[in-house]
Amino acid sequence: MSQYVFGVDIGGTTVKLGLFDTEGNLLDKWEIPTRTEETGSYILPDIAKDIQQKIEEKQISKEMVVGVGVGAPGPIDNQGVVHRAVNLGWGVFSIKDTLEEILKVPVMAGNDANVAALGEMWKGGGQGSSDLIVVTLGTGVGGGIIVDGKILTGATGAGGEIGHIHVEDNESETCGCGNMGCLEQYASATGVTRLANRKLKESERDSALRGGEVSAKTVFDAVKAGDSLAIEVAEEFGKYLGNCLAAIAGVVNPEAIVLGGGVSKAGEILIKYIKPYYEKNVFHGSRNVKFSLATLGNDAGIYGAAKLVLDTFQ
Amino acid sequence: MSQYVFGVDIGGTTVKLGLFDTEGNLLDKWEIPTRTEETGSYILPDIAKDIQQKIEEKQISKEMVVGVGVGAPGPIDNQGVVHRAVNLGWGVFSIKDTLEEILKVPVMAGNDANVAALGEMWKGGGQGSSDLIVVTLGTGVGGGIIVDGKILTGATGAGGEIGHIHVEDNESETCGCGNMGCLEQYASATGVTRLANRKLKESERDSALRGGEVSAKTVFDAVKAGDSLAIEVAEEFGKYLGNCLAAIAGVVNPEAIVLGGGVSKAGEILIKYIKPYYEKNVFHGSRNVKFSLATLGNDAGIYGAAKLVLDTFQ
Repeated sequence: MSQYVFGVDIGGTTVKLGLFDTEGNLLDKWEIPTRTEETGSYILPDIAKDIQQKIEEKQISKEMVVGVGVGAPGPIDNQGVVHRAVNLGWGVFSIKDTLEEILKVPVMAGNDANVAALGEMWKGGGQGSSDLIVVTLGTGVGGGIIVDGKILTGATGAGGEIGHIHVEDNESETCGCGNMGCLEQYASATGVTRLANRKLKESERDSALRGGEVSAKTVFDAVKAGDSLAIEVAEEFGKYLGNCLAAIAGVVNPEAIVLGGGVSKAGEILIKYIKPYYEKNVFHGSRNVKFSLATLGNDAGIYGAAKLVLDTFQ
Repeated sequence: MSQYVFGVDIGGTTVKLGLFDTEGNLLDKWEIPTRTEETGSYILPDIAKDIQQKIEEKQISKEMVVGVGVGAPGPIDNQGVVHRAVNLGWGVFSIKDTLEEILKVPVMAGNDANVAALGEMWKGGGQGSSDLIVVTLGTGVGGGIIVDGKILTGATGAGGEIGHIHVEDNESETCGCGNMGCLEQYASATGVTRLANRKLKESERDSALRGGEVSAKTVFDAVKAGDSLAIEVAEEFGKYLGNCLAAIAGVVNPEAIVLGGGVSKAGEILIKYIKPYYEKNVFHGSRNVKFSLATLGNDAGIYGAAKLVLDTFQ
């Protein structure tokens, strides 16, 4: 009898859902809006209702469903308990218990960045490796650490929160987390933009970035066109990220490092700026690490959520 | 039927051996010299012979031995294969297979610092926590990361090599690993001594350290006596170690941090210098971490080796 698994990725505005077979083939995917009103109390019932409908539509019996995996933006511990997810309005409660109660199928939940890392290991840029650092360079910097094929969740679900590793003592602006000098302030899309704007202000030097829109995309486009100011920004980005990845590798000794998120759309050129700093400062036992780009894009979360359920219940 | 387990900690000059019951009570411990001649080929046979003798002496039947755990100084992967241990003269081979072949009981092996961390979790300063950072501040800086009760071994056995995390760009001396600016250069016994000697040379300032022997012990003794130069050294030590532990915590989100090794004999005062930097720069999800001192001393390795076997075979 063939079996099925659902992967759910809850974001601040939309919930992505995927139906997979147990081999990880994506059979169907769709989205629903995230209703964050009333402390997000509609979110899980909405998801349950949609999964229920899909089960009926596809004429799947509940016995054929291995389970439902959920990724959500917040610290979520090994028991599937979320410890406040501000973007969703959630406090502390068990996602697992709540959704199992409604759906009557096994549920497991994890932090969205961690779950996406598991997805990239299973079917994306990290395939073939079971010890992995996945860095998501988006508006912020998210991360997922995979150790021996499993998510490193940590004591309170804050494992892999690498965007908030302190990398610079001399920073005057405050990060979203309240600290100063976090990796996220230099290596996210916002961070790259900030570095570029700072550099543009520092001098009157000519640059393709002057006058136009400054974003991670325009910066790396200018890098590719040989713009010297943009190249300096890329060097700075590479130094912060490469050194920080070297430190993380000193802890976890990965087989591969996967770069994802919006900034990674710049492509292989990113690796060119990160790798020299990584290799210079990493412990020799982790020097020969494979750098690659994430391949699942916005689907990494639903893949990883499905994998989380398979690992837990299959 | 009561059961037994052996814990073996191989050092460069002596091998420590312990006989435990499965509850972790140390029933007997002893040492033998480490014969490193002829590429260390006598080491495992020597250990096997000694264990064999102990089994006969204590009239234990082999069926009552759960297994033998081994910690050794080098990267050792999840399969019990060592990837070169220079201090022992070892190349690449399976410690597990070699010793099982001679002893005919189950064997598991791990890196000595990692295994010691497991020991501190089981019966030492980390009791009650299953997500742990153990830092050994000795001649070098060793580390062991425990995730969900298990050693973080990494892809090639270099997990937890935190002494070689790069923490300083402006360093002119080379670390034993070949890099520059490793944590070990500032937070080990040798590192603290180096920081103190540098500071003594920089000025003519009065200090209790001037003229006498400078060591981690004399530095922290001077700190306790209120010596201002020594206090500056402790501040520097605390800044490097506190910031680095904050970065590690950003990766693994521990429940507790345990400080061991010779430097930790200075006592609680160490924590006073480390904690402010840790708390300032760590991600809030890992801010409320318990700092404690290792309690097993040189026995941590045999305890951890025994625990490794129990976790693998019991």
